[in-house]
Amino acid sequence: MYTYFISPKFGDIDGLGHVNNTVIPSWFEQARNYLYKLFNPELDLKTWNLILARFEVDFVSQMYYSKDVEIRTFVSKIGRSSFEVYQEAWQSGHICAKGKTVLVHFDFIQQKSAAIPEDIREKLSEHLIAAIDATAN
Amino acid sequence: MYTYFISPKFGDIDGLGHVNNTVIPSWFEQARNYLYKLFNPELDLKTWNLILARFEVDFVSQMYYSKDVEIRTFVSKIGRSSFEVYQEAWQSGHICAKGKTVLVHFDFIQQKSAAIPEDIREKLSEHLIAAIDATAN
Amino acid sequence: MYTYFISPKFGDIDGLGHVNNTVIPSWFEQARNYLYKLFNPELDLKTWNLILARFEVDFVSQMYYSKDVEIRTFVSKIGRSSFEVYQEAWQSGHICAKGKTVLVHFDFIQQKSAAIPEDIREKLSEHLIAAIDATAN
Amino acid sequence: MYTYFISPKFGDIDGLGHVNNTVIPSWFEQARNYLYKLFNPELDLKTWNLILARFEVDFVSQMYYSKDVEIRTFVSKIGRSSFEVYQEAWQSGHICAKGKTVLVHFDFIQQKSAAIPEDIREKLSEHLIAAIDATAN
Repeated sequence: MYTYFISPKFGDIDGLGHVNNTVIPSWFEQARNYLYKLFNPELDLKTWNLILARFEVDFVSQMYYSKDVEIRTFVSKIGRSSFEVYQEAWQSGHICAKGKTVLVHFDFIQQKSAAIPEDIREKLSEHLIAAIDATAN
Repeated sequence: MYTYFISPKFGDIDGLGHVNNTVIPSWFEQARNYLYKLFNPELDLKTWNLILARFEVDFVSQMYYSKDVEIRTFVSKIGRSSFEVYQEAWQSGHICAKGKTVLVHFDFIQQKSAAIPEDIREKLSEHLIAAIDATAN
Repeated sequence: MYTYFISPKFGDIDGLGHVNNTVIPSWFEQARNYLYKLFNPELDLKTWNLILARFEVDFVSQMYYSKDVEIRTFVSKIGRSSFEVYQEAWQSGHICAKGKTVLVHFDFIQQKSAAIPEDIREKLSEHLIAAIDATAN
Repeated sequence: MYTYFISPKFGDIDGLGHVNNTVIPSWFEQARNYLYKLFNPELDLKTWNLILARFEVDFVSQMYYSKDVEIRTFVSKIGRSSFEVYQEAWQSGHICAKGKTVLVHFDFIQQKSAAIPEDIREKLSEHLIAAIDATAN
């Protein structure tokens, strides 16, 4: 697990006074930079090798403008060519949103998925959690 | 089912030349305005009565800058106080993304969920699909 | 002048109940697609030839969730290699925001600005306004 | 002057491989949180007292995905009820964008601008620069 802190900005707040739901996928994406660097240490788009296949987000509790949000990022599954990232957004001591994102290691030249190299697999494993429930509840 | 057309804008495209994944929840949100008006005909935030509880999106195929995107919106489930919206994004004759969003009819004064009124339930039913697979595949 | 209509989405509204200021540059960008097509009829990023050098926006009056916004787009200046776009956002019969954007016709291979071709210059001229004040006031 | 660091996220990058221009107003907004707290220490939207009247941004040089961006924020003018914020975005030792934003101290109950209180004026003055050129060039 690793953490990333975000300060909500004025425009992240919607007409009900809460962080708008469409903001969370962007925050999660920003917090995944660390994992992306395992695959692309220089974050070089010319040699990019990941595709986002799916995400889901559960909105547990409202988030507000005035406090920083802590994004906690875990690896929840590692397959042959794909892996799943589990992330939580916490504010003021409460979990407020949680989500899963599936990413595929992709060979853009051959246009097909490719096995995750062993050295990256090992680094991903360091963030692996046995069970999501242990964290979220 | 109803449709909504969106023209991608320059900044929707990411470094790989495709519509970025974080854009889709916003497009789906925009296309849900029609359903929101069933609950709030004037889209008045002061009497707002819906909470978004969850969404998920599957990215099936890339979308590009140059062609309009058609968002198809269905109601896929109707519960006592909540309902599920199923949406698809189509471009150039292909389905490119599909997602589900769960919304809860909420009483912000009493701070609890509230049964969906019968007249709204009827209107929602007009967009109900029997099976998602019939559409997406 | 040409017009483009946008339906605000829930998340465009900020905590004060108005369209957030950071949304307007995106709306203006979306409405400029028509002008971009004069330079790139297929909106092909591989042969893209425009750079955005500057923009400014004046926020005249609040915009709300419930009504469509009309974006009016004009060409306000045409130079050798650059041109200026003047845009207004109208809602419910009022001008609510106005802005100028400077774009440069750019040769990405030679990495320098390039004269606007005559045929494009002519098409741009069709949207030219003599004086901005005539429109905005 | 105070500084705020931002890590670009994947979706901030557009089809040309650069940070999209519409992202900068959001980054500047986020960096202004510090100034907003001078007016609203709790960032409480219910007692909010600022209106954004205008912004302008000059795009000097491209920004990329792979390096953090430093936002430098100054106060460039202080009037009776309004003030101007001058901001720069730096990446890899270069200034890449600079902008000015005009904010008005506003009484939302009386619906009119209000003089900036003396204690806030003093704190704003601590970030005042004599001449923008000294910094930007």
